[in-house]
Amino acid sequence: MIGRKLVEKIAADPGALGYDVTAMTLVDVVLPPVPAGLSVVASALALDVSDPGVAAGLVASRPDVIFHLAAIVSGEAEADFDLGYKVNLDGTRFLFEAIRQEGLRAPYAPRVIFASSIAVFGEPFPEKIGDTFFTTPLTSYGTQKAICELLLADYTRKGVFDGIGIRLPTICIRPGTPNKAASGFFSNILREPLAGKEAVLPVDESVRHWFASPRSAVGFFVHAARMDTARIGPRRNLTMPGLSALVGEEIEALGRIAGPKTVALIRREPDPVIRRIVAGWATDFDAQRASELGFTAESTFDEIIRIHIEDELQGRIGHG
Amino acid sequence: MIGRKLVEKIAADPGALGYDVTAMTLVDVVLPPVPAGLSVVASALALDVSDPGVAAGLVASRPDVIFHLAAIVSGEAEADFDLGYKVNLDGTRFLFEAIRQEGLRAPYAPRVIFASSIAVFGEPFPEKIGDTFFTTPLTSYGTQKAICELLLADYTRKGVFDGIGIRLPTICIRPGTPNKAASGFFSNILREPLAGKEAVLPVDESVRHWFASPRSAVGFFVHAARMDTARIGPRRNLTMPGLSALVGEEIEALGRIAGPKTVALIRREPDPVIRRIVAGWATDFDAQRASELGFTAESTFDEIIRIHIEDELQGRIGHG
Repeated sequence: MIGRKLVEKIAADPGALGYDVTAMTLVDVVLPPVPAGLSVVASALALDVSDPGVAAGLVASRPDVIFHLAAIVSGEAEADFDLGYKVNLDGTRFLFEAIRQEGLRAPYAPRVIFASSIAVFGEPFPEKIGDTFFTTPLTSYGTQKAICELLLADYTRKGVFDGIGIRLPTICIRPGTPNKAASGFFSNILREPLAGKEAVLPVDESVRHWFASPRSAVGFFVHAARMDTARIGPRRNLTMPGLSALVGEEIEALGRIAGPKTVALIRREPDPVIRRIVAGWATDFDAQRASELGFTAESTFDEIIRIHIEDELQGRIGHG
Repeated sequence: MIGRKLVEKIAADPGALGYDVTAMTLVDVVLPPVPAGLSVVASALALDVSDPGVAAGLVASRPDVIFHLAAIVSGEAEADFDLGYKVNLDGTRFLFEAIRQEGLRAPYAPRVIFASSIAVFGEPFPEKIGDTFFTTPLTSYGTQKAICELLLADYTRKGVFDGIGIRLPTICIRPGTPNKAASGFFSNILREPLAGKEAVLPVDESVRHWFASPRSAVGFFVHAARMDTARIGPRRNLTMPGLSALVGEEIEALGRIAGPKTVALIRREPDPVIRRIVAGWATDFDAQRASELGFTAESTFDEIIRIHIEDELQGRIGHG
């Protein structure tokens, strides 16, 4: 989803990265769509970088910037241990190593932006997780992301590439339809009512979590691609800024923007399984370094909802 | 060195791990010596666990406890990127994965003790590095150790084995002869004068560092093998206790125990290269968790020196 929006952003504004993008190669395990009206040369490939040799072929064209967002999601990586390590660890390592081998043939050191996750952290947490808090993931997905962060920093230190790891907050409002991800309800309870549909809230309103909009997420990747990395030093993995908010604050913002009838579409249906999963997630961060380096996110849920209305609903709120 | 001392410890006291050890398999890339007088069945093998398939063969005998100390050292891992990753990362992952495959055939979950290092940390440091400080290694060796720590915790969480990562302080007094490791002088300036020989001090007496004796190091592994792991929880990598001391304090302790003639054998020969390397190393830790879990180390350099005299010099100090 973020990959698609990032491509659309560059398609709409080829100077977004600070210089004119002249060519893009889009790679996914299923053939990714090339956005209409793209003025730059674009090719789309259905390839799996976790297959040996694939990354070497991709890197041979020597792109200046590589965005690496490919991953098996958390639930699947937990259910299929081998697949998670293959895609999330070996796939990333193949890519990093392909860049290194390319650079051994002739000097080459692209900017590499890696999508990491706040899943690198595991409870118990301090009230706010600071930039020097340790990574003790409690999922295989988080473990794989934390390992790739370490590889990214070491390959960067060795001059293989110029890497930045982006620890994304939970993206809200995620467009599309309700899915079975345990975190889905954070978006569902806003997106569905805004479209005039019912949504289920499985936890209490007192649940706190860490959010950024899809627009901010795209902004993180764009900023990471164009920023001056000389200021970063060897600590290359950054917790992105976000908004720490209660579910109750989400709902209040929805009421302010769309009124009580929309809020009434949220149906409370407590789910002890989801409640237990969510209780283990981080609730608040002090993303000082990323903020100082110019990364920005929303500061209210009203903003997050308005961005969804602008970017996904063409400015209109539906009422059934 | 620690592996050898650990084997000697178990040879001398087959009940050291809390039950009778009945068989040991010693594995190293060069054939390891089997200590004389070993009452348990012991076999020694020259094998490289970083070669695919080797670990599976070793694990097939289903040992109850596996001590994994094999590694390419820091300088070599920095000089040979491929070899460091092969031995320190892939070798460890092969071992962990061989245990998992063995457990898939029939239930099996051994205790696994992994030798990690304070090289998982990278400057700048707080005055004391606490148990929740993040791992931002500044060497490939430290990166590989930090990655293996993450794997150890994830495999443990998944029930594949019962793992404990042991972050060793700098071992002092390291027996043997002076070597070219940048940290060698910390031991050289004590070991050589105690044997009546000259030693070179390349840094100021105001340099602070983090130490434990070889006897403590063996004790960490023995304790990790016999402790009740139910108390540890999912955070399986522990900074071991140690002694934070100045080089000047090392020398004062030497003077107290062996007199001024012995101290006079230390020759000051400042080396800006070594001084710069050492300046990037951690100087002090608050190893609270490991201490609470029963790991212990020395609290004075006098103890560290006395242990060397007892364990290596048969109680005698040489004077040229």
